[in-house]
Amino acid sequence: MTDTVTTSRIAPWASPRAQRRLAQVEAAVSADLSPAGVAATVRTALDAHAAQVDHDGIVLYAGTNIPSPAAASATLPTLSGRPSMGWPGEKYQVGLDHLDTLEVLAPLLVADLMEGAHAEVRLQSATLANLAVYTAFAAPGDTIAVLPEAAGGHASHHAQGVPAVRGLTVVDLPYDPVRLDLDYPALPGFLREHRPKVVVIGASMMLFPHDVAAVRAAADQVGAILLYDASHMAGLVAGKLFQRPLHEGAHVLTFSTYKSFGGPSGGCVVTRDPELAERVSTVAYPGMLANYDAGRLGALAVTAAELAADGTAYAQACVTNAQTLAAALAAEGFPVVGRDGEHTRSHHLAIDAHDLGGGDAAGLRLGDAGIYLSGIGLPWQHPDEGLRGLRIGTQEITRLGFTPADQPRIAHLMRRALLDREAPERVRADAIALRREVNSRQTDSRPADSR
Amino acid sequence: MTDTVTTSRIAPWASPRAQRRLAQVEAAVSADLSPAGVAATVRTALDAHAAQVDHDGIVLYAGTNIPSPAAASATLPTLSGRPSMGWPGEKYQVGLDHLDTLEVLAPLLVADLMEGAHAEVRLQSATLANLAVYTAFAAPGDTIAVLPEAAGGHASHHAQGVPAVRGLTVVDLPYDPVRLDLDYPALPGFLREHRPKVVVIGASMMLFPHDVAAVRAAADQVGAILLYDASHMAGLVAGKLFQRPLHEGAHVLTFSTYKSFGGPSGGCVVTRDPELAERVSTVAYPGMLANYDAGRLGALAVTAAELAADGTAYAQACVTNAQTLAAALAAEGFPVVGRDGEHTRSHHLAIDAHDLGGGDAAGLRLGDAGIYLSGIGLPWQHPDEGLRGLRIGTQEITRLGFTPADQPRIAHLMRRALLDREAPERVRADAIALRREVNSRQTDSRPADSR
Repeated sequence: MTDTVTTSRIAPWASPRAQRRLAQVEAAVSADLSPAGVAATVRTALDAHAAQVDHDGIVLYAGTNIPSPAAASATLPTLSGRPSMGWPGEKYQVGLDHLDTLEVLAPLLVADLMEGAHAEVRLQSATLANLAVYTAFAAPGDTIAVLPEAAGGHASHHAQGVPAVRGLTVVDLPYDPVRLDLDYPALPGFLREHRPKVVVIGASMMLFPHDVAAVRAAADQVGAILLYDASHMAGLVAGKLFQRPLHEGAHVLTFSTYKSFGGPSGGCVVTRDPELAERVSTVAYPGMLANYDAGRLGALAVTAAELAADGTAYAQACVTNAQTLAAALAAEGFPVVGRDGEHTRSHHLAIDAHDLGGGDAAGLRLGDAGIYLSGIGLPWQHPDEGLRGLRIGTQEITRLGFTPADQPRIAHLMRRALLDREAPERVRADAIALRREVNSRQTDSRPADSR
Repeated sequence: MTDTVTTSRIAPWASPRAQRRLAQVEAAVSADLSPAGVAATVRTALDAHAAQVDHDGIVLYAGTNIPSPAAASATLPTLSGRPSMGWPGEKYQVGLDHLDTLEVLAPLLVADLMEGAHAEVRLQSATLANLAVYTAFAAPGDTIAVLPEAAGGHASHHAQGVPAVRGLTVVDLPYDPVRLDLDYPALPGFLREHRPKVVVIGASMMLFPHDVAAVRAAADQVGAILLYDASHMAGLVAGKLFQRPLHEGAHVLTFSTYKSFGGPSGGCVVTRDPELAERVSTVAYPGMLANYDAGRLGALAVTAAELAADGTAYAQACVTNAQTLAAALAAEGFPVVGRDGEHTRSHHLAIDAHDLGGGDAAGLRLGDAGIYLSGIGLPWQHPDEGLRGLRIGTQEITRLGFTPADQPRIAHLMRRALLDREAPERVRADAIALRREVNSRQTDSRPADSR
């Protein structure tokens, strides 16, 4: 009987916990599967999500954002169903000449903004951008070297992700958990031992910049391509803040276009070297793409132009909010991660959540309190511990107009939910009130001419 | 001097023809790269494209469509920047509970509609859906067997596409150019010789159905997985017309969601077998996806519900329009492709364009005349001939309300442009007039309750 109730139709292989939730939703949505019924069910879910998260939420999740109004309106819904294959001037399809404008503007602006010369902008995600780079520079059986998972190495760097699609062996780079960075003295010997074809740096949580030049020097000794995955840091890189990976020596930069970058979904690959660019471009098309959703390119171009105009101010505002929030959280009694008394130089910060029941449990409790974020691994966690940290990103609240003065108020809400163990619904009411107060200020961090 | 003018900044490795066009557009768009300037340039391009193609064009390109109004409105733009990783009930992110509805509705409806049990709907394209299937069932160095390119085998089946990402060897299945189908008698011996891990059928142009049961029987003899790529045929499969691949024996079905299916961009994998489904699902996430753009799922669910309600009528209307257009084109003097006096049983038809200067040149001339389609390889073409055929699909004109009575008028426009060599701009004026007449009928092929 219990089995009947908790077996999911769509994924009977999922975990018991997932199947319970899936079966519950499957029963709920199946009441009316007519076109009108489904449209109504979808609308209700979208509206409820928008009200909870987009309008009333305090979103501190590090891997999300809201596009600017100008970027959001730079689209045409029908475009996503219009394949455009090949370069302007020799496309497979006829009648798409006006799209040439988007297909030139977006890579031109993105390459300039990220201090590269060539940008591949058609891939649908940074994960796929990484797969394109691996495919261009490593063959099945080759090795790549990446940051450990507990040091923010992304799934798309690791053996459970796209490296396995390419048939690659993955080794973890030496890491210094005290410095929260690579173990630079150990790096040259490590690379000589493993001889990776690609070295991947840049992480899902970065509090301090890498010494890119040092990694490049070590990579050059073994002929490895140095890939900097700026998925999370792209908005700061665009602002020439935190670090400038291509300027400092990375061969190739990949990034996600919707996180701190603040644009539409998608992934980019940028480089200064036309030979590397050609290899990646050829893997992207025709290797991995037929249609690629040209509907994203207008928003991407507008976002890049906005960041070129005021990206430094936006990036600085993100960092200032993060540093202010980190100090406020520390003052409230949270064990904020850092080194040498410094919490962060980016829009990221982290709390060691070991004494809060771990990052996952603390994240769920904050969600009930109207504050949305996620757990993260920390370099000193035990293998069976789950995610020990709580990761916080300030890119969305900064765009929405939260100022340094608001950060102690967020820290206090988090204290009430996690340290004082106050009832989440009471904290939630105050979190919503704070968000609505910011909404009512009707500002964001961008100048009027870019809205 | 010539070099200066025709070297593209964004892709100096592209062909001379592409570089000329790229350099031209690069110069045009660079006049004002301020945020407001870029937004205006993008808007102008989008509006011009929409006017030319979406409003005034006769789009006979086989790989596109326009979503229904209900599907188009079943979205929330901010969703595309909200990563949702893992199953409902155990997502990495907090605060996305309302999306569980979409993440259950879409695979539930898609699996039922396509006569499967399990649907993976998160992959961004059918090309990536195919890569997920290859990765699940073939390792680097393994062989897959596919339809020849000149028989409609898609780029994502061939060595220049995703099979190379996986490190696979690709062999062409034996093909009968007269029957426009697989060479069934030769198939068992061929598979025994090459022992592919995956056999891929289903093509980018299908006039007649495959004998799926015969291919499955041969595949079973060598333990191969039979993949039917219904990227183009999914709308007909949804209508239980043309053929029913999973019912007839395919292990796995992949398809593109925006072509004849008529939904948002994206790709799906459907199967009846939970073990195969689990393997594909695990490759999809966490193998190939972190974020996956949940913004598409509402439109996908609504499209599937609409096709469940009236997909057979839509599919039949597409086929009737194709058969009527084929007969009309033959009556105008075009060499319409077919077998045994029959032109097509699908929404596709083809013209042998050898005497029209080839498919590419004929396609460009029709584009100037306001009719948009593409070339296609034909099984009897010579290796150095370019694309010998013109491929036509009726899915978009059917959705827009073109009826069988309109097909002779389209055929006549094509005759004037291609056989009579009338000035394209004169034909174009009449093509636009026909499209506007259909627009003014204010109908589409769907019942009012699904709009």
